[in-house]
Amino acid sequence: MKEPISEQIVSERATIGPAAASFSDAEREAVYRAIHSRRDIRHFRPDPIPEDALERILMAAHHGPSVGFMQPWDFILIRDLAIRREVKELFNREREAAACFYDEPRRSQYLSLKLEGIMESPINLCVTCDPTRGEVVLGRNAAPETDLYSTCCAVQNLWLAARSEGIGVGWVSILKLPQLRRLLEIPPHIVPVAYLCLGYPEEFTDQPLLQSVGWRQRIPLEELMHYDRWAK
Amino acid sequence: MKEPISEQIVSERATIGPAAASFSDAEREAVYRAIHSRRDIRHFRPDPIPEDALERILMAAHHGPSVGFMQPWDFILIRDLAIRREVKELFNREREAAACFYDEPRRSQYLSLKLEGIMESPINLCVTCDPTRGEVVLGRNAAPETDLYSTCCAVQNLWLAARSEGIGVGWVSILKLPQLRRLLEIPPHIVPVAYLCLGYPEEFTDQPLLQSVGWRQRIPLEELMHYDRWAK
Repeated sequence: MKEPISEQIVSERATIGPAAASFSDAEREAVYRAIHSRRDIRHFRPDPIPEDALERILMAAHHGPSVGFMQPWDFILIRDLAIRREVKELFNREREAAACFYDEPRRSQYLSLKLEGIMESPINLCVTCDPTRGEVVLGRNAAPETDLYSTCCAVQNLWLAARSEGIGVGWVSILKLPQLRRLLEIPPHIVPVAYLCLGYPEEFTDQPLLQSVGWRQRIPLEELMHYDRWAK
Repeated sequence: MKEPISEQIVSERATIGPAAASFSDAEREAVYRAIHSRRDIRHFRPDPIPEDALERILMAAHHGPSVGFMQPWDFILIRDLAIRREVKELFNREREAAACFYDEPRRSQYLSLKLEGIMESPINLCVTCDPTRGEVVLGRNAAPETDLYSTCCAVQNLWLAARSEGIGVGWVSILKLPQLRRLLEIPPHIVPVAYLCLGYPEEFTDQPLLQSVGWRQRIPLEELMHYDRWAK
């Protein structure tokens, strides 16, 4: 079933305020708040996402940067529960397979973590990349992988826009892409980049889940800094 | 020369406001304004970037999402003009090479566009990805490329944070990565993902450059939407 995104957002969205104007302190803090309080969400409330909010966050993704203005992304909105059940089955197999690589007690901890909300979230969204969009793409001659990089930047736009709407996003990376391609009938030349669950979260926690359960800690930024060249 | 990022940002940055609180309409609009008025900047003013603003945008990148909380990124801040001159030389060769793939009048138009601000911007920044950071990374078993995807999401965080600071970012993709690796002495297993120019822009324009010069138009979002599966 085709559910067209409403006309008003198909036209170029007007920039909110003049593009050149500087941000007030409050506006700047709002951007940082979205960045610092964004979480990977796996616990969803069942409430549906309003159409207008969904359109705004998709439009935010579509305004991501792209090499040569290539806009290589497509968006597959998945509401059908039968398809999602099959995706969940893929996830389950992959989760078990990945558990084989951990020793105890890490394995039990891994298996105890809830890592997706495929069935509970009101919407699943697959963001793909079409490497054939535009034959000679400006800026892509030296680094063809920039089409995938652009698509990831679009996903991050969507993630932050969703956070500002109070909507949670979870990226399910525990999926084999060839099987996902088959389930969603994605053509062989199109790359599924992100499989996302979207919905209102039970909460936005203060820390990432893997940090709060002690799985892994944040690296001090200083350890990641280099000056002029790699060698410190 | 080592120029340590100051101590106060090395510790975990406190979330601005409680993580769970919803965004006001004004805060939400600020996030959308950053997303819609972000541009790829190639014309820079010479003014330096204040240390505190630089630290905030680097910390924004470091708070990007990452598979298994892997945080695979590193940041090489490049101020040295001799190194940047060599990077610019790489760019020049690659720009000429890429021109070979266009016919006239496209070729002349391509060569007329200013596509980087390597020498004029006060800071260049190379964001890299370390695929070896964490031996068994949670969620990366099925899709090892998610380390690169995480790094791109971090770049987009940086790009939006910079926009809210009035700082422009340009992503220079017209560079061969092996040569860039040599210039910056990056180890063979580390992937240079993004080479960025940072500085105050001459302006934030209403539209992307490639749109305003008629190189390529924005695709209507509706054409990119699919429902439940790829086939429409």
